[in-house]
Amino acid sequence: MEVSNDLLNYKNIKIFQNSNWFKFSLDSVLLPNFITLNKNVKKILDLGTGNAPIPLILSTKTNAMIYGVEIQKEVYDLAIKNVDYNNLEKQIKIINDDIKNIDKEFNNETFDIILSNPPYFKVEENSFLNDNKIKTIARHEILINIEQIIKIAKKLLKNGGSLALVHRSDRLIEIIELMLKNNIEPKKIRFIYPKVDKECNIILIEGVKDGKSGIKIMPPLFVHNDDGTYTEEIKSMFQ
Amino acid sequence: MEVSNDLLNYKNIKIFQNSNWFKFSLDSVLLPNFITLNKNVKKILDLGTGNAPIPLILSTKTNAMIYGVEIQKEVYDLAIKNVDYNNLEKQIKIINDDIKNIDKEFNNETFDIILSNPPYFKVEENSFLNDNKIKTIARHEILINIEQIIKIAKKLLKNGGSLALVHRSDRLIEIIELMLKNNIEPKKIRFIYPKVDKECNIILIEGVKDGKSGIKIMPPLFVHNDDGTYTEEIKSMFQ
Repeated sequence: MEVSNDLLNYKNIKIFQNSNWFKFSLDSVLLPNFITLNKNVKKILDLGTGNAPIPLILSTKTNAMIYGVEIQKEVYDLAIKNVDYNNLEKQIKIINDDIKNIDKEFNNETFDIILSNPPYFKVEENSFLNDNKIKTIARHEILINIEQIIKIAKKLLKNGGSLALVHRSDRLIEIIELMLKNNIEPKKIRFIYPKVDKECNIILIEGVKDGKSGIKIMPPLFVHNDDGTYTEEIKSMFQ
Repeated sequence: MEVSNDLLNYKNIKIFQNSNWFKFSLDSVLLPNFITLNKNVKKILDLGTGNAPIPLILSTKTNAMIYGVEIQKEVYDLAIKNVDYNNLEKQIKIINDDIKNIDKEFNNETFDIILSNPPYFKVEENSFLNDNKIKTIARHEILINIEQIIKIAKKLLKNGGSLALVHRSDRLIEIIELMLKNNIEPKKIRFIYPKVDKECNIILIEGVKDGKSGIKIMPPLFVHNDDGTYTEEIKSMFQ
């Protein structure tokens, strides 16, 4: 396998990525720009951190300690490289482990915020799975599924702490159902539309552990203008 | 009480309303324009039909038989007047009864579509209830609540039939939860935003009895342009 390391600039952060594994995903920029941060947030956990784009972007917005978990050794190595390159070793800790084990690493009710850009696709008998193992594990629910992620989050979140997810919109109902089952009350949603006249394809959802009912639906976010260029809001996230 | 009968024109339909009770609500136009109609739809039921705007608007879109239920006698009388005035007595039947009794009037699994623009507000100890009884009953969950409406719909819908609701967006999670509990799978949602940069305030949601999971989130609908005028899409619903 030919390895090409590409570089992404996000504000003053440099993020190395490997385009043989997965190309840069806008979703990893949307999620840290969506979550509700305040100065009481001290500990954040990113489940399935990949090459660590979410912790790196979060470091521009908060002084909280940020932990990322990544199971795949090669991807973990790239995450470590990114943290080191940006001199963020004091704020960001990357753990090379299975998300399903992470509740042994931390005490229950440790985190103020848990977030995840998880694998989007269910594995069905007739799923088309990519030959590329690293990509397949990142995109398909092979090693972990959304129910397991929400269960772990419930355990590790403080009461009143929040879980934020980015996911495909066709799984909205299932995610709401699983959050409610785990006493995480959905409190804020933002729908992402490719263009103003298209169906939504991506959702951002934040739930609060033991939160009261009542949800805020934020203004819609459009990725592209009619002419295919990025909208001002998307551009402003990078500047 | 002074009664002033106002007239609303919707395409070639005339709808008398009583502005002492409630002013024309855009929500009653959005819902019949949202539901999925096809030529197999033979029987439709509108729960809490008011002065019958939803059946009247639906009559411009389908040849199905449309039933409306309205508990308040004075409002029912106005619905009858509207149906008669538009010569739609053959297609629209209005029933003056409590929604909670309507499952005695019809056999189970009778309807292809059930829809409702129900009372939006929960009744809490400190609710501000309007002195105007007719308005209060239409707006607050005094005689019926959303859970009761969804339960009745489950009973009266055919398998594969659909329930469509318009409601306030802050109750989205509760509505999804109640639909799931009653084996009505949410399949289509549209979010209504007052303007492009405002939070959503109204939702349109359609669920299918015993439907498979997987939801479509339609393009957003904006009511007003920045200058306060109605958007083209809203205007086109009336023309």
